[in-house]
Amino acid sequence: MISMKRRGETRDKLIEAGLQLMLAKGYTNTGIQEIVNQAGVPKGSFYHYFDSKESFALAIIDSFDRNHLLKIRRHLSSDQALTQGNTKTQPQALSQALPQALTQALSQELPQEAICDRDDNKSACCSTASERALDRLLAYFRSVAQEKGDCPSKSGCLIGTLSQEMSGQSELLRARLAQALDGWRAEFSQCLKLAQAEGDVRRDLCPIELSEIVLSGWEGAILRSKATNSPAPLHSFIELLPRLLQIS
Amino acid sequence: MISMKRRGETRDKLIEAGLQLMLAKGYTNTGIQEIVNQAGVPKGSFYHYFDSKESFALAIIDSFDRNHLLKIRRHLSSDQALTQGNTKTQPQALSQALPQALTQALSQELPQEAICDRDDNKSACCSTASERALDRLLAYFRSVAQEKGDCPSKSGCLIGTLSQEMSGQSELLRARLAQALDGWRAEFSQCLKLAQAEGDVRRDLCPIELSEIVLSGWEGAILRSKATNSPAPLHSFIELLPRLLQIS
Repeated sequence: MISMKRRGETRDKLIEAGLQLMLAKGYTNTGIQEIVNQAGVPKGSFYHYFDSKESFALAIIDSFDRNHLLKIRRHLSSDQALTQGNTKTQPQALSQALPQALTQALSQELPQEAICDRDDNKSACCSTASERALDRLLAYFRSVAQEKGDCPSKSGCLIGTLSQEMSGQSELLRARLAQALDGWRAEFSQCLKLAQAEGDVRRDLCPIELSEIVLSGWEGAILRSKATNSPAPLHSFIELLPRLLQIS
Repeated sequence: MISMKRRGETRDKLIEAGLQLMLAKGYTNTGIQEIVNQAGVPKGSFYHYFDSKESFALAIIDSFDRNHLLKIRRHLSSDQALTQGNTKTQPQALSQALPQALTQALSQELPQEAICDRDDNKSACCSTASERALDRLLAYFRSVAQEKGDCPSKSGCLIGTLSQEMSGQSELLRARLAQALDGWRAEFSQCLKLAQAEGDVRRDLCPIELSEIVLSGWEGAILRSKATNSPAPLHSFIELLPRLLQIS
């Protein structure tokens, strides 16, 4: 039992180290030796768990997407059980509130610290869900901006970074990255639909189309934030978005 | 004289080959040997013109930005002299219509084919400038979407691609990439201001702020277009943008 747990820990350590390195430097710039060094495990461990660097990157994307989707849903849900961020003490509330795909994902073993997606300040940013869907969407964006801090040139979005670098290099990774982005877009779409019903977003535009431009705008703001090494493009997006979505 | 011209041609060939390779594969994935092979020049030529791969990338960004800024201005200008795309026969009209910085850039030797930024179809997309600023902005986006074709996973935007990959790796490149993006944003801002005056864009939002979200939205749409290997995110952006900018 301990042995199985340790094996899981080694895999988690490799994924965590690879995620940090690929987020900062991209796929090609990240070497396997560097990953095992940062994870503090022998090089043989890497090939015990992963056939190739590509399958390792796929596991990183899986892990990141699963955790980030959970973060989005925690933020966008009006259900207090979700917004507390405690997935261990309220499994019933969770399984009732979450769609089947996410419930299945949660049933897999996740490193507890990964669930919060490095959102150490979660109690400040989403412990109390706003009653209004648009406010919850903006709170999610603020939370991501807060994580990136004041010098975001070395962070960015893992999915956006790998999409730029790897879409033309690996069909396997490209398809998984597209799936991740579309999953996030679908969450935004649901939230925007609620915001329309609450009268905070203009109703003459389809929430699916709106979610497309919101996701594009956010990924582009993260890209510009890297290039300017400043959080200003993120804050500008968060500031303008509600005014653009409302009727003037 | 011939010798100087040939030297310029070799440098142009290296830049053109490097641009194509970095657009498809990024900075790290592109080797110097591969660049000289594609350019059809001896390896020594590379180091005759460039101290390092980083200074070579800077020259590529300079060239791409200069040409792309010219493309943007050709599209966004209502001046017919500019929209003909013929910079050789109308120098006076150009120097009157273009700000000083661009006129200076044009005075430098540019490979003629590069001026059009691979926009072979320029006569179809911008030979007649629309009278309305918003239509001109949308025509520019349509022209870029057209260049990328139906399978855009291997193209994207050079400035966006390198911003994602290199912002955390090279302060020199990061600063130049940020400058390029801000130059494009400033053009969008001017155009949006005109569109407001013409009544096609809501006037309750500042054109500078609007240009931020338009540029972010477009760069994000290109990123999603790479990930999905489909032009759909670009078309979705072009379709929704005017409706979002107008009063409902």
